[in-house]
Amino acid sequence: MRRTAAALIIGNEILSGKIADTNTTLLARLLFDLGIELRRVVVCPDEVDTIGKDLSDLRSTHDLVFTSGGVGPTHDDVTIDGVAESFGRPVVRSVAVEKMIRKYYGDRATEAHFRMANMPEGAEMIRSSDAPWPTVVIENVFVLPGVPEIFELKLTDLRKRLDEGYGFHSQAVYTLCDEGEIAGLLERIAEIFPGVMVGSYIKWQAEDYRTKLTFDGTDREAVARAADMLVDELDAKLFVRRD
Amino acid sequence: MRRTAAALIIGNEILSGKIADTNTTLLARLLFDLGIELRRVVVCPDEVDTIGKDLSDLRSTHDLVFTSGGVGPTHDDVTIDGVAESFGRPVVRSVAVEKMIRKYYGDRATEAHFRMANMPEGAEMIRSSDAPWPTVVIENVFVLPGVPEIFELKLTDLRKRLDEGYGFHSQAVYTLCDEGEIAGLLERIAEIFPGVMVGSYIKWQAEDYRTKLTFDGTDREAVARAADMLVDELDAKLFVRRD
Repeated sequence: MRRTAAALIIGNEILSGKIADTNTTLLARLLFDLGIELRRVVVCPDEVDTIGKDLSDLRSTHDLVFTSGGVGPTHDDVTIDGVAESFGRPVVRSVAVEKMIRKYYGDRATEAHFRMANMPEGAEMIRSSDAPWPTVVIENVFVLPGVPEIFELKLTDLRKRLDEGYGFHSQAVYTLCDEGEIAGLLERIAEIFPGVMVGSYIKWQAEDYRTKLTFDGTDREAVARAADMLVDELDAKLFVRRD
Repeated sequence: MRRTAAALIIGNEILSGKIADTNTTLLARLLFDLGIELRRVVVCPDEVDTIGKDLSDLRSTHDLVFTSGGVGPTHDDVTIDGVAESFGRPVVRSVAVEKMIRKYYGDRATEAHFRMANMPEGAEMIRSSDAPWPTVVIENVFVLPGVPEIFELKLTDLRKRLDEGYGFHSQAVYTLCDEGEIAGLLERIAEIFPGVMVGSYIKWQAEDYRTKLTFDGTDREAVARAADMLVDELDAKLFVRRD
């Protein structure tokens, strides 16, 4: 049974356009590799109640939920409070993380830094060698930081834990077709191979191809046959390459 | 009264990590410039019912909703059906757009191309000189294409229509502070200037600064005074620049 996932991206800086969210794509690629279906991404502001409500919705309707952002030391970092609200648990201070913070900052450690040791009661902490602090996990929710470099480090650590061996397979065919010209063929392929997701992406700016067709699914054989069908039925002049 | 907005980004290609969504940032920046508060972004798959349900939620809770993607000629382009479902209206074919498509594609026009002339009954069409087709608008919902170059063109066209003269003002101060060291000061500034949004962003990779502080609001004077307070109370050694 394929697992489903959702992401909750937290931060006013994304909603105001100050920062472009790149974590969604990192997460989406990892989940795709692992055969986990990312079904929904929500971007919400730094508000405890909004985070709490969104998280409650997402975690009750998906197998796994990943949050990004809002876990630093400043006043707008309220993700932990939102997560705790969603689970109806108090926020407690982890003595272990408090020690790590004291060791890391030494005499410069302030009360604000120690806020990063707060977590919902009963949360699990996944330690990793490379990231400065552990990852907070509570039931099916993984609480990740927004800084892309650390987000990526933590995802790498989570790969092993999340991998159950059901990766997707993927093939792509690059063509000179106009989307409208092959829409009928694509529809037939999608009907014949119901387990294969057929995607079509036009390249607006000049490239060696015009439309890229993608075939994704957990059945490697079916994915290959769907791509074969396209190549076979396509006017040979319009075929560019396949990978 | 500041208007609120939401975005519905439609497409399996984003959820599978094949394509990084860049339209959200373009939209977020435009709305910020116009003083419209983007409160929520949802990324959902190419499914009529999901689109319909998400759109119904978003349009009943926000003043403006923008959709991106799913309006081309292929089988996975189902946004118009989802929008029609949300409004409980039938999908009809626009004779005007059908003519444009015939003119644009000439003899190469297929039935799939003409799907792009489908729209919910009663939709308004905003024409623009640069984009190939008009933008579909229905009540408070703007239906935009996913291809970033066309998305941006259409946004530019919409600017005039959306502008009611309540733009945000913004200032930034770049510092060598660690976030934890100035968290207390930021909290005081946020309390003294409740109409100013105070943001704090650390730069993980080497730059000439370490933490960027941002001040945003509709009251230019209050924004400037909030930034002044930071600069005044900051240890002068830690100040890098202001813009």
